[in-house]
Amino acid sequence: MINGIKFVGGELELKNLGRHILVEFYGCNKSKLDDLKFVERTMVGAAEYSKATVVDEVFHKFNPHGISGVVVIQESHLTIHTWPEYGYAAVDVFTCGHTVDPWDAFFYLNREFEAESNTTMELKRGLLDLPNLKVKTTA
Amino acid sequence: MINGIKFVGGELELKNLGRHILVEFYGCNKSKLDDLKFVERTMVGAAEYSKATVVDEVFHKFNPHGISGVVVIQESHLTIHTWPEYGYAAVDVFTCGHTVDPWDAFFYLNREFEAESNTTMELKRGLLDLPNLKVKTTA
Repeated sequence: MINGIKFVGGELELKNLGRHILVEFYGCNKSKLDDLKFVERTMVGAAEYSKATVVDEVFHKFNPHGISGVVVIQESHLTIHTWPEYGYAAVDVFTCGHTVDPWDAFFYLNREFEAESNTTMELKRGLLDLPNLKVKTTA
Repeated sequence: MINGIKFVGGELELKNLGRHILVEFYGCNKSKLDDLKFVERTMVGAAEYSKATVVDEVFHKFNPHGISGVVVIQESHLTIHTWPEYGYAAVDVFTCGHTVDPWDAFFYLNREFEAESNTTMELKRGLLDLPNLKVKTTA
């Protein structure tokens, strides 16, 4: 077993319920980070691009600048907080199941916000002893 | 400098924009985790208990069970995803500024969901070179 993933014959045994990627986007297009409609459309677009099912969304613009937003998806959520003055955005993509790849959302957002650099981290959420959660691999 | 925090004279120099705690609650009260109204009230209560300003909220119950919800606060967000069948909930509390302590929300939720155990992690978000972000300490 490595990092909660166990290979049993041709099957990949998932021991975690969710995947969570935490992203810091630096050097983004500042005006885009302060454009409520753009941020909203882009976050929903990222969810759809990663084949997630959008359930609901909430976006707010703060004074003097900065946007917070959430897209609730059938498979968990995407969140964003922007600091346009620093060209910085903090993004989280939390997915459960194996139909949505959170990294698809990451690549979509990285391009749309024109980030010059980023740091990322992927965490497993809900590491449980679940022998019945099995997914066929291509191996 | 320790973990992005620097003491300069009597001032605490913050080098990160946000604090993010990731919590896994295990062994919770299963019926509470599947009660939409309870989860919603509890998450909003946790935000208020930690002195955050609630901006908006979205909660959904899924079939056959499980709840996803978000509380957008002036200071960032709280999210939850519950798996009542396992007595498990994944919670995130992301705060910016220095008026809200995300651990207050943690202790509130830990009690309300009757968690038998938990694992937690605190991350700094938005580590930037911001010499002007200063907070007076009591030292």
